[in-house]
Amino acid sequence: MVRAAQSMARVVNADEMAARARRRLPRGVFDAIEGGAGDEVTMRANRAALQRVWLRPRALADVSRRDLSTTVLGQPVSMPVLLAPCGMARLAHSEAELAVARAAAHAGTLFAVSGASSCSLEEIAAAAPGPLWYQLYLPPRRADATALLERVERAGYAALCVTIDTAVEITRERDVRNRLTLPLKITPRLVATGVSRPLWAKDFLLGRVGQAHSMHGFGRAVRTAYQNLADTIENLVPVTFEDLAWLREAWAGKLVVKGVLRGDEVERMLGLGIDGVVVSNHGGRTVDCVPPTIEALPEVVDAVGGRAEVFVDGGFRRGTDVLKALALGARACLIGRPYMYGLAAGGEAGVERVLAIFRGEIERAMALLGCATVADVDSSLARRE
Amino acid sequence: MVRAAQSMARVVNADEMAARARRRLPRGVFDAIEGGAGDEVTMRANRAALQRVWLRPRALADVSRRDLSTTVLGQPVSMPVLLAPCGMARLAHSEAELAVARAAAHAGTLFAVSGASSCSLEEIAAAAPGPLWYQLYLPPRRADATALLERVERAGYAALCVTIDTAVEITRERDVRNRLTLPLKITPRLVATGVSRPLWAKDFLLGRVGQAHSMHGFGRAVRTAYQNLADTIENLVPVTFEDLAWLREAWAGKLVVKGVLRGDEVERMLGLGIDGVVVSNHGGRTVDCVPPTIEALPEVVDAVGGRAEVFVDGGFRRGTDVLKALALGARACLIGRPYMYGLAAGGEAGVERVLAIFRGEIERAMALLGCATVADVDSSLARRE
Amino acid sequence: MVRAAQSMARVVNADEMAARARRRLPRGVFDAIEGGAGDEVTMRANRAALQRVWLRPRALADVSRRDLSTTVLGQPVSMPVLLAPCGMARLAHSEAELAVARAAAHAGTLFAVSGASSCSLEEIAAAAPGPLWYQLYLPPRRADATALLERVERAGYAALCVTIDTAVEITRERDVRNRLTLPLKITPRLVATGVSRPLWAKDFLLGRVGQAHSMHGFGRAVRTAYQNLADTIENLVPVTFEDLAWLREAWAGKLVVKGVLRGDEVERMLGLGIDGVVVSNHGGRTVDCVPPTIEALPEVVDAVGGRAEVFVDGGFRRGTDVLKALALGARACLIGRPYMYGLAAGGEAGVERVLAIFRGEIERAMALLGCATVADVDSSLARRE
Amino acid sequence: MVRAAQSMARVVNADEMAARARRRLPRGVFDAIEGGAGDEVTMRANRAALQRVWLRPRALADVSRRDLSTTVLGQPVSMPVLLAPCGMARLAHSEAELAVARAAAHAGTLFAVSGASSCSLEEIAAAAPGPLWYQLYLPPRRADATALLERVERAGYAALCVTIDTAVEITRERDVRNRLTLPLKITPRLVATGVSRPLWAKDFLLGRVGQAHSMHGFGRAVRTAYQNLADTIENLVPVTFEDLAWLREAWAGKLVVKGVLRGDEVERMLGLGIDGVVVSNHGGRTVDCVPPTIEALPEVVDAVGGRAEVFVDGGFRRGTDVLKALALGARACLIGRPYMYGLAAGGEAGVERVLAIFRGEIERAMALLGCATVADVDSSLARRE
Repeated sequence: MVRAAQSMARVVNADEMAARARRRLPRGVFDAIEGGAGDEVTMRANRAALQRVWLRPRALADVSRRDLSTTVLGQPVSMPVLLAPCGMARLAHSEAELAVARAAAHAGTLFAVSGASSCSLEEIAAAAPGPLWYQLYLPPRRADATALLERVERAGYAALCVTIDTAVEITRERDVRNRLTLPLKITPRLVATGVSRPLWAKDFLLGRVGQAHSMHGFGRAVRTAYQNLADTIENLVPVTFEDLAWLREAWAGKLVVKGVLRGDEVERMLGLGIDGVVVSNHGGRTVDCVPPTIEALPEVVDAVGGRAEVFVDGGFRRGTDVLKALALGARACLIGRPYMYGLAAGGEAGVERVLAIFRGEIERAMALLGCATVADVDSSLARRE
Repeated sequence: MVRAAQSMARVVNADEMAARARRRLPRGVFDAIEGGAGDEVTMRANRAALQRVWLRPRALADVSRRDLSTTVLGQPVSMPVLLAPCGMARLAHSEAELAVARAAAHAGTLFAVSGASSCSLEEIAAAAPGPLWYQLYLPPRRADATALLERVERAGYAALCVTIDTAVEITRERDVRNRLTLPLKITPRLVATGVSRPLWAKDFLLGRVGQAHSMHGFGRAVRTAYQNLADTIENLVPVTFEDLAWLREAWAGKLVVKGVLRGDEVERMLGLGIDGVVVSNHGGRTVDCVPPTIEALPEVVDAVGGRAEVFVDGGFRRGTDVLKALALGARACLIGRPYMYGLAAGGEAGVERVLAIFRGEIERAMALLGCATVADVDSSLARRE
Repeated sequence: MVRAAQSMARVVNADEMAARARRRLPRGVFDAIEGGAGDEVTMRANRAALQRVWLRPRALADVSRRDLSTTVLGQPVSMPVLLAPCGMARLAHSEAELAVARAAAHAGTLFAVSGASSCSLEEIAAAAPGPLWYQLYLPPRRADATALLERVERAGYAALCVTIDTAVEITRERDVRNRLTLPLKITPRLVATGVSRPLWAKDFLLGRVGQAHSMHGFGRAVRTAYQNLADTIENLVPVTFEDLAWLREAWAGKLVVKGVLRGDEVERMLGLGIDGVVVSNHGGRTVDCVPPTIEALPEVVDAVGGRAEVFVDGGFRRGTDVLKALALGARACLIGRPYMYGLAAGGEAGVERVLAIFRGEIERAMALLGCATVADVDSSLARRE
Repeated sequence: MVRAAQSMARVVNADEMAARARRRLPRGVFDAIEGGAGDEVTMRANRAALQRVWLRPRALADVSRRDLSTTVLGQPVSMPVLLAPCGMARLAHSEAELAVARAAAHAGTLFAVSGASSCSLEEIAAAAPGPLWYQLYLPPRRADATALLERVERAGYAALCVTIDTAVEITRERDVRNRLTLPLKITPRLVATGVSRPLWAKDFLLGRVGQAHSMHGFGRAVRTAYQNLADTIENLVPVTFEDLAWLREAWAGKLVVKGVLRGDEVERMLGLGIDGVVVSNHGGRTVDCVPPTIEALPEVVDAVGGRAEVFVDGGFRRGTDVLKALALGARACLIGRPYMYGLAAGGEAGVERVLAIFRGEIERAMALLGCATVADVDSSLARRE
């Protein structure tokens, strides 16, 4: 762990972490994390649109002390960067979501656990003391949904985050070309891949001795992981306004809707009593040609009008990206691929390093932009080209 | 046919089908399908302009069942994708328009048969039970035109589609550089080409045994095909408002005008009693530097004001492209090059595969955009950058 | 000449002619024709801005006969393409301006003879019967100017075109890097160049036997040419409004001002009685970062308000480029580099071929845009992106 | 020196000077001068935004004599190009700031000496008679600040320029990757670099014999240089409005604030009595994604409303760039990297050459734009795309 942290400390930014992950992972696994839908127009547009927002520094402010902390839905976090729900973590690293949860807790921020996680929601909650959201793929049957919500509540999750942009199964073309199928079959192709990626192959097949989740044995762990993912994918259903109303009744805690890209439907959601909205296009991974999130953000912020908290994800790779979103009205940003690359490259230490990079970039940028606190990052700081 | 279908099933999207066609066809033939006029500014702009339209997903809609069907000029089709009139089909594959017509019927959609087809309009109509349009290059003499219209009517074509953007013969520079002349002469150059493209050469020279149209023998079939095309090219004349008025009198069925790019002349066309308009720049193949069709579409839709159906072609390669056009007011899109690549790569199975790809992409995108039916794809879904 | 014409006939467009010239000319000579000022931002912008103008075809017009003819300052020309004044012609080809003048006359269009021509203005006027303008670099002394104007008038030039955008000598960086100095010195570098470009070297050193101007002998011809150019460059002076007023008095014929890029000074020029304006940035060759001409054109056309004729040059390579300028209010376009490339690649036949290419492209484009005459190319045809 | 001047005379423009510097300097040192913050978005945007400004030539003006001189804060300079404060000069060349000061004086322009200079501010003032600004990194303690201001005043600096955009230490990623640390350690890596860059290594290690500053001996000179820089970097503190008010009291001379990018805070600065503002993003070197300076300039000029002088830096590489800034309201431009490249490539002669290139480009451009004096470069000359 110390050696891993030392190695990770040499990674300068999120793009370098991606490069490390690319070297460690088999092509098909890397692509499964990196790839977007269709021609990846939206995936690229997320980044390009962020680069068209300028940050206008405030002059002569006293920034001798900087405070990055904020709250999300009432819970304190050490910085406005949250970990987005991502499936597939077991593919990246044998410690999977447990490593992510520990790194998030260590960094004092929030982890939104995917409904398609490889570890059970209870295992993840037990692994780390930090605040957690549970990202829900709504089960088709109410009875199953009720049972799941009870498990989530019992495990102590702070909020429920229902994803509404995955009405059907997505087949990304990179995965088709790489013939990636879940669960991974031990094909000659995969064996060949493993030879060129021995560190990954060893970790993937054997995991690490002495860790809680691997005591169940390799076979069971992997089977569980995939079963979870496969069940979820098979059971994807559209979430409707009726479902949302039911959820609001069934879940007493905070409720967040993830996958909103237009302002005109927000009123009705607010009427149902939701607490937060995530402006998201799923990282450009579900349907191509939807708008970049940073361009959809102001419209949603306007429609919400302060009656709920607005979060955003999609292409955030730099501390300055996060500050742009804050200046345009977001409460916090969620990052997905960057921490998955950290996980793949260095396990828990890799995720920690990614969060440390974001923290360092945000702190330096706040100082240079004349913002001592997150609240200082107001709308005067952003100008869209 | 089964093996061809299996091979075609591995083609993931329309661009891959183009890559397959490129590998199978001699360069000159591929270029004759692919190439555009002049510097190909308009050809590229068709695609680029489509990529500047964003699709804004509707949230929380019930899309558990998706229905792609619609009607065009009163005729039901299984999806809003029609096959545009293209000449040259015999160059791509010996089954030519017969394969296309069968694939269209199989997919439940409409084929707009080119007036420069390699098979006779009667043969094509006989080959498949699906709905057909006849795309007319207006013969210079009224008597010839009358005779042709009678043949079209007798053969049972559902509508007449008169092309107005080909007032003179077009010489594309790729064809000049490739020294492509019709009919193809058996030059050393072509023989050399055939050696590197043996599958195409065999199919081109011999066709396939046992099929209806090749019973006439290779020589006659090819002669007929080229004669048809050469006659058409030689006799290209400008179509005027007077011609359109005459056509409206002479043809009792549905009448569509193809090649409109401005709104200000639509009123006069509507006054003559036309039923549909195709916003088209001929795929960027006639004159360069005319506007991309997706940018001309809204102006024409506005001018038509619901009094006729508006169609569009030019650069449609993805299901999301089709949905963009629908959101901007089109009734349906026509595709040309994609199915020609399918024809070249796999004959009838290739055309079927292209249509299946479009159908799959449209259905998935509709689900993820919150649209259960084609009518749900309203103007709120599109935003031009 | 016949063989040259046959070879030239295979050149498809202006860009191909440039490629031919590049192969024939020494690098330094090609660059002296091709190069622009500074970072060549304006030079590239001329082309890029033209490609942002769309041509909107008029539907259903009767274009069975096309007439490209027009008049410029009252003189009939066969098409709206004129030959711009260019120095250096002797570097490109030993027949220099005589070849250009003959080709222009053959094509029925106008040649604006450069004040820095390699042949005397009388020789050029004698060489060809077509209409000519004389492009004046104003001599610093009035007496010299008067004498020159008398020669121009005696030689029968139709109009005087005074260039106002060359107040000081221009040093283009390509020329500095190529160590191009005029007159060309027979350096080892040039000899080495000549070895790789033998056709050019032979023509440059020996000219062609039996032609009028080379009877003076190689030495005198080249000396004259360079003396003319060197004198001009050395004597470049700013032209002021006072100079223009004097010129208007001193020259009874038509008077054109070349090098205007703003509308706000046109009124004062018109007040002095000028007959025409050329919107020009000297092909991006004098000072970099001035606006592309097609973007400056509408402003100048508005300011002129029909009280003079407006011409434009800078980056015109296609018939569609010419039609864009006409639609935006130009009377005609001037081309420079394209005919110089033709001259370099094929002498008189090369210039003829360039003019034939433009004529063919304009005629086809007019037909496909629904314009039977140049007057039909109205403002409804152009839309700037 | 004569030979150096001859070699420098062959450098055509600022980009070529950069290329020379790149060949002479070790990679790490070149990158330390060239590099920007983060993804270098702002660094590139500075150039790109300048290229989107067009210069609109004034026609028919009398520009037979051109006068580039102007004044800055009351002091005459021979042209509107000043030398910006840059640290690191000793890394580029052993003569460091002394060479720069001499070249500035020779060119009759102003040098803004960096507070992180390798030579003492007294040495620099003694080296050359030209006008100097002192760029202040405000020391954290008032006593130190007072002492420093007294030294600056005694040394005769014309103005104080306080930099407000460096609240914290900046770590540029190029430097991290190059493992550049100050003071340079004689590592195997550096020795290897020196072998491939022998001229630089010799100059860096030995300096030049017989020059004033190197009489102190190599060791002391270099130690002093780095100590200065290291002290400065270690002591970076945010400058607040309170600090500025204190400075205004403590410094009787002209006071300039460097690092302003917004107009809305200018009023308060003016209220404190400042004399000038430098619109600057530190060449894109402090925090990425702040706006390009040429786009921020008009807003600041408007806010200042003539009550102070406005300067600008960031990406100025051409005489036309300077004229764009003047047309948009700047009094003068500051250049940084270009003269550092000149210094690296040719010492004092290199800096002189860079200034001569700018002078020549500005003079030619003024003539061709119809401007006889700097005052003629008014707002009608610029148009932003």
